[in-house]
Amino acid sequence: MNRSVMKWLMLAVGAGAAFGVSAQEAEVMVEAAAEVASGISTAELAYALDTFYFLVSGAFVMWMAAGFSMLEAGLVRSKNTVEILTKNVALFATACIMYLLIGYNFMYTEAGMYFPGLDLILSMEDHAADVVNAGGEDAPYYSSLSDFFFQVVFVATAMSIVSGAVAERMKLWAFLGFAVIMTGFIYPIQGMWSWGGGFLGETFGYSDYAGSGIVHLCGAAAALALVILVGPRKGKYAADGRVNPIPGANLPLAALGMFILWMGWFGFNGGSELAVASVDSANNVARVFVNTNMAASGGLLAALLMAKFRFGKADLTMAINGALAGLVAITADPLSPSAGLATLIGVVGGVLVFVSILFLDKLKIDDPVGAISVHGTVGIWGVLAVLLANGDATFTGQLVGIAVIFGWTFGTTLIVGLIFKAIMGLRVTEEEEAEGVDIVECGMEAYPEFKQG
Amino acid sequence: MNRSVMKWLMLAVGAGAAFGVSAQEAEVMVEAAAEVASGISTAELAYALDTFYFLVSGAFVMWMAAGFSMLEAGLVRSKNTVEILTKNVALFATACIMYLLIGYNFMYTEAGMYFPGLDLILSMEDHAADVVNAGGEDAPYYSSLSDFFFQVVFVATAMSIVSGAVAERMKLWAFLGFAVIMTGFIYPIQGMWSWGGGFLGETFGYSDYAGSGIVHLCGAAAALALVILVGPRKGKYAADGRVNPIPGANLPLAALGMFILWMGWFGFNGGSELAVASVDSANNVARVFVNTNMAASGGLLAALLMAKFRFGKADLTMAINGALAGLVAITADPLSPSAGLATLIGVVGGVLVFVSILFLDKLKIDDPVGAISVHGTVGIWGVLAVLLANGDATFTGQLVGIAVIFGWTFGTTLIVGLIFKAIMGLRVTEEEEAEGVDIVECGMEAYPEFKQG
Amino acid sequence: MNRSVMKWLMLAVGAGAAFGVSAQEAEVMVEAAAEVASGISTAELAYALDTFYFLVSGAFVMWMAAGFSMLEAGLVRSKNTVEILTKNVALFATACIMYLLIGYNFMYTEAGMYFPGLDLILSMEDHAADVVNAGGEDAPYYSSLSDFFFQVVFVATAMSIVSGAVAERMKLWAFLGFAVIMTGFIYPIQGMWSWGGGFLGETFGYSDYAGSGIVHLCGAAAALALVILVGPRKGKYAADGRVNPIPGANLPLAALGMFILWMGWFGFNGGSELAVASVDSANNVARVFVNTNMAASGGLLAALLMAKFRFGKADLTMAINGALAGLVAITADPLSPSAGLATLIGVVGGVLVFVSILFLDKLKIDDPVGAISVHGTVGIWGVLAVLLANGDATFTGQLVGIAVIFGWTFGTTLIVGLIFKAIMGLRVTEEEEAEGVDIVECGMEAYPEFKQG
Repeated sequence: MNRSVMKWLMLAVGAGAAFGVSAQEAEVMVEAAAEVASGISTAELAYALDTFYFLVSGAFVMWMAAGFSMLEAGLVRSKNTVEILTKNVALFATACIMYLLIGYNFMYTEAGMYFPGLDLILSMEDHAADVVNAGGEDAPYYSSLSDFFFQVVFVATAMSIVSGAVAERMKLWAFLGFAVIMTGFIYPIQGMWSWGGGFLGETFGYSDYAGSGIVHLCGAAAALALVILVGPRKGKYAADGRVNPIPGANLPLAALGMFILWMGWFGFNGGSELAVASVDSANNVARVFVNTNMAASGGLLAALLMAKFRFGKADLTMAINGALAGLVAITADPLSPSAGLATLIGVVGGVLVFVSILFLDKLKIDDPVGAISVHGTVGIWGVLAVLLANGDATFTGQLVGIAVIFGWTFGTTLIVGLIFKAIMGLRVTEEEEAEGVDIVECGMEAYPEFKQG
Repeated sequence: MNRSVMKWLMLAVGAGAAFGVSAQEAEVMVEAAAEVASGISTAELAYALDTFYFLVSGAFVMWMAAGFSMLEAGLVRSKNTVEILTKNVALFATACIMYLLIGYNFMYTEAGMYFPGLDLILSMEDHAADVVNAGGEDAPYYSSLSDFFFQVVFVATAMSIVSGAVAERMKLWAFLGFAVIMTGFIYPIQGMWSWGGGFLGETFGYSDYAGSGIVHLCGAAAALALVILVGPRKGKYAADGRVNPIPGANLPLAALGMFILWMGWFGFNGGSELAVASVDSANNVARVFVNTNMAASGGLLAALLMAKFRFGKADLTMAINGALAGLVAITADPLSPSAGLATLIGVVGGVLVFVSILFLDKLKIDDPVGAISVHGTVGIWGVLAVLLANGDATFTGQLVGIAVIFGWTFGTTLIVGLIFKAIMGLRVTEEEEAEGVDIVECGMEAYPEFKQG
Repeated sequence: MNRSVMKWLMLAVGAGAAFGVSAQEAEVMVEAAAEVASGISTAELAYALDTFYFLVSGAFVMWMAAGFSMLEAGLVRSKNTVEILTKNVALFATACIMYLLIGYNFMYTEAGMYFPGLDLILSMEDHAADVVNAGGEDAPYYSSLSDFFFQVVFVATAMSIVSGAVAERMKLWAFLGFAVIMTGFIYPIQGMWSWGGGFLGETFGYSDYAGSGIVHLCGAAAALALVILVGPRKGKYAADGRVNPIPGANLPLAALGMFILWMGWFGFNGGSELAVASVDSANNVARVFVNTNMAASGGLLAALLMAKFRFGKADLTMAINGALAGLVAITADPLSPSAGLATLIGVVGGVLVFVSILFLDKLKIDDPVGAISVHGTVGIWGVLAVLLANGDATFTGQLVGIAVIFGWTFGTTLIVGLIFKAIMGLRVTEEEEAEGVDIVECGMEAYPEFKQG
């Protein structure tokens, strides 16, 4: 309560006094009024709780960077492990810096309908002054820095998707060069179209709660463009059309990565409600947690059973990708479905990722970790699944969203990739690939003491 | 504050006006009153904070699934690593789905004194309407979905205990089949007896804050029954009575698993206060955090010193199991003891787990990760340790609780296990066990490139 | 709102009644007043939120213990991996118990200007009674147990720094013996000088938000003293002055450790605001999160680029140490700088850690994981960097702080180390070092099945 409340309280006390309230009683009342007035208001507490919720969610999403790193480090060969780790840690740092310098402003502060303004100087003000408007519809009700923190870890997620798909052959510095462009420009501009008030949301009503399209499909589209440019790994596709599986070197790491991503997704989706400090928001966040968890469970079991029925084996890497597919599938709308429907959305994601991984191999699109299937194929499914339970979404809107996000990201990545190819080359030499990129790029081995079989 | 408060405020303002308050001042007062009335009430904020606390706690407990996975993956041989990972990821998904479909309803919604009603259709409603009762004793004061999320990760914990004990020889699909029964029926029904208002709590006053008995002893009892059915691993017990240690393949993973479990336990125990949004609750949760941490510390050092004195070596796996034992020991009452007593409860847990692991080997009960000792032996100790500081618990009540939980879980598991044995067999063949279950069940290796010594 | 508010409300209702408010309306008003009075006050909610924030932050910092364990386990050779893990898990437990018994009292409860009182009996009371003072400047506004929990994980952090530096040769039990002294006496006494109201803060105005000096430099100073006493690892420095790199056995673990530490640091720095339940506090915590993240990003890229330019290779271990350096650098003041300045403070940290690691090798100070450079060299930089944006800090104050913390910790560690050396020896024998300390100290191998190349 603020000063005007206090003033009113004191006036009322005066009124009461006229009715024979003793001086002593009046004093008690004034003290009580003063105490209330000096305390924190519920609007301020809600601001604090929302900010804290945002920061915890952001920390969980940041943790996903570790998940992608472990997943990818587990699924590549040991001779390419240090390099994929280096790409992952460096892309996270790059994403943070580029989004601070350019991306956040492009996406939110200088957002337009189609292209952002060009004010690159970041000025992040806290919205303390806006707290009194907390009840209002569009007023900021949490620290804008907490919003930046939450958003920046999303950028890194989009970029992490790419690293897995081009693993074991793309040059480290070309990759990081592309990361600069992706996190500073490609991602934020399309992000602005939906979340920054741009045309996808405003004109087409494209609906994407936490980014099945905006984050995951975007990352996968960039991955696909680069995979096409760099080509498959040596030895993956035999001349006779057979696909040689190239198993990952350390599957416990891959399983750990899945668990980290699963946990981090509670921040990714749960934080995307953007508020928790009201009964409705709290109920929504709880529903998002439950649905996120159920979709992952559904996806995992679906992919595991698909593999069992098709291969006769309980393929762990398929189960892992199934869980991630379930998570991607529910991300575009973890709020509207019931828990049962969320499970089914995940199940479909798990089936799709299985089919997609086999299909891409038929097309000789070599994606060592299955990232394009998990985030692209299933990302599209997630965007469409919004239509199952969310009456506000339209088929047209979702389709336009998919087309625009994919088209923009794929197209710009292709152009940027070709430029990098011309300048410095995208792929290591055949000899370097055979030797492993760890020694070539990083000068060290991931497991120098373990004899390779 | 709600509409009636606002009405009252406006009336009071009217009263004030009669005492010569100017029109301008009256306007200020009405504005203030409106602002207060439009804001969120403290009851609503408490609802939001409790829900958020619940969800964060649940995310921490979900993380324990990763802890069990890493612990078990580190303590088995490399040829059985993929399979134990597959079991762990799949049992988590299975637990979530079965608890959604059946278990939660059995345990809470349709709970009875002895057996639940048979309404299997899940209907989880949010309790927004009950917020006004937030001050009441038994009113729900957080989202019921957040409660579901918190409870479901407990089921998975109970099931995770089993996977470690039967590692390296139990068939994957028989295990997952049992997981369906365990998480849908066996666990929820006995859970209902204590936490769902059933006879253990109501009639016998059985006291178990976060589940030393209800979760950990339950998991261990099921594990013991299955271990007896599947028998020890080939080569573990020599004909002359000697015990051959079978060292785990990757100890850093086991240590990581311990840390993950330790961290997750802050959610497991800390969340079991079920509320944080009052001074008393907040103090209680803080005490639970401190006691949980101290018990783990005590258990770790006790087991480490036991090993040093007995074996002359600082046995890391014993230290890990000691920490987990400390955590299990304090789980039945992390609230009543002082921090010092909590440490001692953990110390006793650490000593007991050491003794129990050696003793079970004498009985030729082969438990590759020590799960029965950690969760069973020490689970019993935890239930009894409640008597040390909690005046509400009775020796009879605790003893009946132990007997009922153990008897029910062990008995039903034995029956279900025998049925599975008859239908599909519980154990892989000798040749498959020698080759390793990874290739047999999952068709892949955990570390395909590392030469096995 | 409390009883006096309720009384006042009823009086006001009485006053309103005199103005012709109907009996029915009066009843509604009384009900409303009662409801408000029975609810929780905003001060109590703030207490709960602050406590919860503290506990979550503490859990994140506890998680850093896993980070140090993984980092160090990844950077040592496989024959010394179990032992470094054992040291890490045991030091955490030791730190918790010593800080409970002695350290916390020394640092806070019995704190003096120079030396603490000698009351070793821990009495941790909750400050529920102080809640009404929540508005006051110095009143405790959260559970004191949550404060203990947050502080205790800091002690463990300081101690974790030491274990890495003396890895692969210091005796396990001598190390743990030192841990007892460090966590019970050396750390808490100097901590008291700054955070417990002692002379560093009071007399010299030494400013250190979350402990670049108090935690990190302290740990590094102890590490340096012990490294000097135990000497370099066999074979690290050739007779001709060349430095033989001794690569770590498992780099994915090291990268995982970095991510865990990065995540945990959000609790370490973010929790050091000590409050979140107001608009200002929430904004501050958000700023701390952002700056912590940016400094890590800056440090990582700076060290990676330094390595690329100097060695021609993207050295992953340098990148990891760069990120940690950025985190250490910002820890003394993550609140005052802008996000851009925080990035630059991290960049300087990343450059410094690179230079320092090479320089210490020239001095034949053998630090297998670079802990002295990360936490010591960069800790000093962090303390000085406070001057860049925080007008309250003085050059003299910061310099005195550095000198006192370093001098005290280095000096006492040297003395304690010499005593341990005399009693039991600090270093394993040459044969034991060649064989690896895992077998000698722990009787087991980290990776028994992987053939060593």
